[in-house]
Amino acid sequence: MGFTLRRFLGGKPSKAPLLLPFLLTLLLVGSRGDSNAMDNVATERMAEESHRQDSANLLIFIMLLTLTILTIWLFKHRRFRFLHETGLAMIYGLLVGVILRFGIHVPQSMSDVILSCAVNASPATLLVNVSGRFYEYTLKGEVSRGKGHQVQDDEMLRKVTFDPEVFFNILLPPIIFHAGYSLKRRHFFRNIGSILAYAFMGTVISCFVIGLIMYGFVSFMKVVGQLGGDFYFTDCLFFGAIVSATDPVTVLAIFNELKVDVDLYALLFGESVLNDAVAIVLSSSIVAYQPAGDNSHSFEAMAMLKSFGIFLGVFSGSFALGVATGVMTAFVTKFTKLRDFPLLETALFFLMSWSTFLLAEACGFTGVVAVLFCGITQAHYTYNNLSPESQDRTKQLFELLNFLAENFIFSYMGLTLFSFQSHVFNPLFIIGAFVAVFLGRAANIYPLSFLLNLGRKNKIGSNFQHVMMFAGLRGAMTFALSIRDTATYARQMMFSTTLLIVFFTVWICGGGTMPMLSFMSIPVGVDSDQENSSSAVLDGSQRRNTKHESAWPFRIWYNFDRNYLKPLLTHSGPPLTATLPACCGPLARCLTSPQAYENEGQLHDDDSDFILNDASVSSMYADVTVSTDASGSRTVNPKRSSAASTGGGPFDEGLDHELATAEHEVAIRGTRLVLPMDDPVEPPTTVTLPPPPSPPRSEPRRHRL
Amino acid sequence: MGFTLRRFLGGKPSKAPLLLPFLLTLLLVGSRGDSNAMDNVATERMAEESHRQDSANLLIFIMLLTLTILTIWLFKHRRFRFLHETGLAMIYGLLVGVILRFGIHVPQSMSDVILSCAVNASPATLLVNVSGRFYEYTLKGEVSRGKGHQVQDDEMLRKVTFDPEVFFNILLPPIIFHAGYSLKRRHFFRNIGSILAYAFMGTVISCFVIGLIMYGFVSFMKVVGQLGGDFYFTDCLFFGAIVSATDPVTVLAIFNELKVDVDLYALLFGESVLNDAVAIVLSSSIVAYQPAGDNSHSFEAMAMLKSFGIFLGVFSGSFALGVATGVMTAFVTKFTKLRDFPLLETALFFLMSWSTFLLAEACGFTGVVAVLFCGITQAHYTYNNLSPESQDRTKQLFELLNFLAENFIFSYMGLTLFSFQSHVFNPLFIIGAFVAVFLGRAANIYPLSFLLNLGRKNKIGSNFQHVMMFAGLRGAMTFALSIRDTATYARQMMFSTTLLIVFFTVWICGGGTMPMLSFMSIPVGVDSDQENSSSAVLDGSQRRNTKHESAWPFRIWYNFDRNYLKPLLTHSGPPLTATLPACCGPLARCLTSPQAYENEGQLHDDDSDFILNDASVSSMYADVTVSTDASGSRTVNPKRSSAASTGGGPFDEGLDHELATAEHEVAIRGTRLVLPMDDPVEPPTTVTLPPPPSPPRSEPRRHRL
Repeated sequence: MGFTLRRFLGGKPSKAPLLLPFLLTLLLVGSRGDSNAMDNVATERMAEESHRQDSANLLIFIMLLTLTILTIWLFKHRRFRFLHETGLAMIYGLLVGVILRFGIHVPQSMSDVILSCAVNASPATLLVNVSGRFYEYTLKGEVSRGKGHQVQDDEMLRKVTFDPEVFFNILLPPIIFHAGYSLKRRHFFRNIGSILAYAFMGTVISCFVIGLIMYGFVSFMKVVGQLGGDFYFTDCLFFGAIVSATDPVTVLAIFNELKVDVDLYALLFGESVLNDAVAIVLSSSIVAYQPAGDNSHSFEAMAMLKSFGIFLGVFSGSFALGVATGVMTAFVTKFTKLRDFPLLETALFFLMSWSTFLLAEACGFTGVVAVLFCGITQAHYTYNNLSPESQDRTKQLFELLNFLAENFIFSYMGLTLFSFQSHVFNPLFIIGAFVAVFLGRAANIYPLSFLLNLGRKNKIGSNFQHVMMFAGLRGAMTFALSIRDTATYARQMMFSTTLLIVFFTVWICGGGTMPMLSFMSIPVGVDSDQENSSSAVLDGSQRRNTKHESAWPFRIWYNFDRNYLKPLLTHSGPPLTATLPACCGPLARCLTSPQAYENEGQLHDDDSDFILNDASVSSMYADVTVSTDASGSRTVNPKRSSAASTGGGPFDEGLDHELATAEHEVAIRGTRLVLPMDDPVEPPTTVTLPPPPSPPRSEPRRHRL
Repeated sequence: MGFTLRRFLGGKPSKAPLLLPFLLTLLLVGSRGDSNAMDNVATERMAEESHRQDSANLLIFIMLLTLTILTIWLFKHRRFRFLHETGLAMIYGLLVGVILRFGIHVPQSMSDVILSCAVNASPATLLVNVSGRFYEYTLKGEVSRGKGHQVQDDEMLRKVTFDPEVFFNILLPPIIFHAGYSLKRRHFFRNIGSILAYAFMGTVISCFVIGLIMYGFVSFMKVVGQLGGDFYFTDCLFFGAIVSATDPVTVLAIFNELKVDVDLYALLFGESVLNDAVAIVLSSSIVAYQPAGDNSHSFEAMAMLKSFGIFLGVFSGSFALGVATGVMTAFVTKFTKLRDFPLLETALFFLMSWSTFLLAEACGFTGVVAVLFCGITQAHYTYNNLSPESQDRTKQLFELLNFLAENFIFSYMGLTLFSFQSHVFNPLFIIGAFVAVFLGRAANIYPLSFLLNLGRKNKIGSNFQHVMMFAGLRGAMTFALSIRDTATYARQMMFSTTLLIVFFTVWICGGGTMPMLSFMSIPVGVDSDQENSSSAVLDGSQRRNTKHESAWPFRIWYNFDRNYLKPLLTHSGPPLTATLPACCGPLARCLTSPQAYENEGQLHDDDSDFILNDASVSSMYADVTVSTDASGSRTVNPKRSSAASTGGGPFDEGLDHELATAEHEVAIRGTRLVLPMDDPVEPPTTVTLPPPPSPPRSEPRRHRL
């Protein structure tokens, strides 16, 4: 119980419209349930059987994932790009769902396990007294309404459809953390204003637009008589909130592979990552708003304000908590010599990141949001303090977790279409939802882009706007939010509709991204590396560019971060003794790491003959962002960045080196150590220091083993 | 439910001595439980509260682990070796246990969550009817006998003491897999006969010796009147089985760090790894034996034979399953070009290894045993097919998982001493158990060593025997087996005693290993590398040695493996076209990978001037075993293996290179790229191929980022 971290479906029990007094009938469902023959040995056998069944169910998912991986490989191998791996995972999930639903019949013995006992409340823990022994039961969730008697028929499907809180507590955190940890911070910060506008204002606009349109549709349906249950205005708003979260997975993998314009990439990625956080907090604020107008479900200014307060409180609390643990990790890794033991360091990093989630949940904030900001902080500060091996390890670990969780969610989505047992497909509602989602996205992108273009130097072109409109896929977060609560008719209809929206956007919009890009004549194959290396030669002009392009709050933040926070939290940046006023001398000295003084030397002597050494040092300590796409493919980058470009400093050139290197490594591996002849070993340029290309001789051997 | 894989405590419900008819009293525990005020909103609030509590509990463990990591670092940093990290984790666990037990009082509101409802059986799933809604509850386990009424007092402790099946299903598999995956196969196979003897015969001997001694003690206690409940002969045997499993963690970490004699290391490691598997299957066979003599609990030849049959069946089934999935993974990685995408490859590797566990559990075999053999197979075959990056990734991943799981278990052990609520500390039983464990270990080591020395060329010296006797620590597996079932008086007494045995052996024997070694004058600091490099120069004499030292079944296996299995399953070894008879030509051609033909070239031209190239190739494709100790510290290995030693071939020299390299890397990192001057770059020895020490210039840069 302490381990699986179920929320016990907190949202559900509250919506019972009437409260009956004690209802102490005990129903024994199943054929043998009411006979004395059901002794404890049989119970044990059944428990074992149930465990086996669980193993088999999980095995289905593992097999699905394995199959997906093999097919992904085949697709990548054959350079087939129209169907992304997530779409593929969904298709496999669908197939397995069909098989489970129509192909396999549950043996009747399974139904013996069920025993129904009626009480007046559903606490999280239930103690059952069996012949003087007490057994503890934990609440798993609500079974679909009114189906108590038929429940044995679909036992297996119900088992495959597991606890939705698993998504929130186990599968989403690594995905969101990875998104934060692998954020390309340079382009992100260059567009921070626009990204925040799209993510916050855009999502709220989209939520209300969709909510209002859906309210219109629902009212119409009520008039026509197509509505089978209650559907309040808050439900409409809730629907708007959950389908407003765009997914950072599918399109961006394609964008990354095709090397689409970096600003467009940053806008879409930044928006969709922050989006998720906004949608979670927004939807939970709307749910919190509901009980206030419990019976009326109408609009109330006071409750609205309260909701807004909750939104702000939860968001800022989660933000602060995530940043706080990130900063703490940075401190710990800076002031201990933990970097001598990469395993310990990686374990610490992992545990601290995980504790963010738990801490936030324990404090009543949103764990997923906290984890996002923790990831960004870890990437910005802690990453610089880690040993190179830990840097590799952490990014690979979270890449793997992200990959597994993501494909699991998408294949589960496919499965759910058939295994979920309370689908409500209402054609009118579905049509309305598609229209609303389309209009909501349009109301987010076009007006905001217009406003933003008034202030931006490099305008967001109309073709960019169309692509952003088109690329608003709905994915894991939308699904997780909608499956969280499927107790009422309204929620069931929302869930079924959401599932269709996700399928449609992932398959159609995801698959159509490439034709869309060429139709919009957006340049593909833009080498962000090229941009870097040309500017890097100009010694920091890029950095200055970044500053000039941004608004003044960002400039202030940038300077503060560079002069105080980075030196305080990491080994890089100028020493605090140089940036802090003289009165803080002793404190500054004790907080500055020895490396920082060397960095100071670098900053002054950028054009001396130390440049090669500086280059390699800065590419070692640079604040590099991890970025491979979720599928693990390295983008093809045949152009090697020249040695001169390594002075470019602390943004994401490091990545490009890595990609280039990985590329070379593949070539070497493929041809079995026949070295590329167009790549001669350069002679050393200084006497005391060998050039970066020829490293200490013992180092490379490690990586061959 | 499908995800957390609980076994629903299969063993427990069967032992109810009497079966009362319907007992339909519904007890509402708690102050507000029977009032109408307990409406659904309150239930929701409580569920949320419970979720927060869960998060906080898990947070305690995370904090414990973080603290442990930091202290481990401090110990390593200060070279303090008397207390191993596992012992440390236990101490922290103990402290937190004391605080939870005596420091914190549970708020009374928590007890509201509990509701007691009495029925005649305890099925795995319970449906509760609340005002027409059905909620599903899953069986969590039995609460301590007769404590139903006081249960609200120790709610928090009960929550911290989570489901023991978590150990078996989540924490043990990665530990055991890592043990198999990181097995030093060369020394392991050289001593395979002795290891099997100690692991199988030794464990069985120890089990029966301990069982008999305990039966004597228990009978004596019964006479004296010190026994508070039933304790049958099968219980004694079960106790013997669970405390016979020695732990591969603590001592071996010390041995690895100190570079104790490799054969002693191999004997202890091999024994303790296989030990675990034997103990699991043995104990479950004894449990399976029990119901047959349900009431008598006496010795029956027929039931004994049946138990033995179950033992053999389960063990061989698990073995076959583990090997089968390992072989399948090898096939998949060999015949696809998955190695171009390390992420996919790593994910596949992880999923296949995990599916072994699930498959075995679904088939009714023992997942942990299957995972062990899967790990060995993966290391022996699949590892050769992986890309270098995946080799790094997989070993780092499992190293991390192993580290986290291990420290979690040990800190949990410490916690349990105070948080577990049904301890039965019986002084007589505890004394008896310590005597029995000591004698059981002696009856395992000394007679078997005597018998083995009759057939062995390099005898197991008496000082080695004493160390093996002393180093028989009990750890994670013993704990997991004993906490699995704590329903009866006998099991509770066993659990408490086992806990004390684990504490004693880990702290006293673990801490005393170093003095013991010097007292027994066992050489410390033996460089297995030295042995390798000297023999490697003799071109395969080491391999021949290995063969000569072993018995004929191993020689046959070795040749079969080298000529057929390795070429079939991996890219290394001679091509199948050369080893298979001519009639199988077409099949052999289609199963042989292109690399194998190159290997054939190598095998003939070992002394040509290609030797440097071959060296680097073979160190790239060698069947290297992963081996860092569980703590992540690299052993200090200042001696660099010379370039000439790399021809040594497919055992574990690769590892030693790696260690040496890691050592250098640390030096480089620490001194900020000031290269060690005693390590000049060697000039190329051939014109077409640069020497292995100076790799393609782009490669090293990747690892600095």
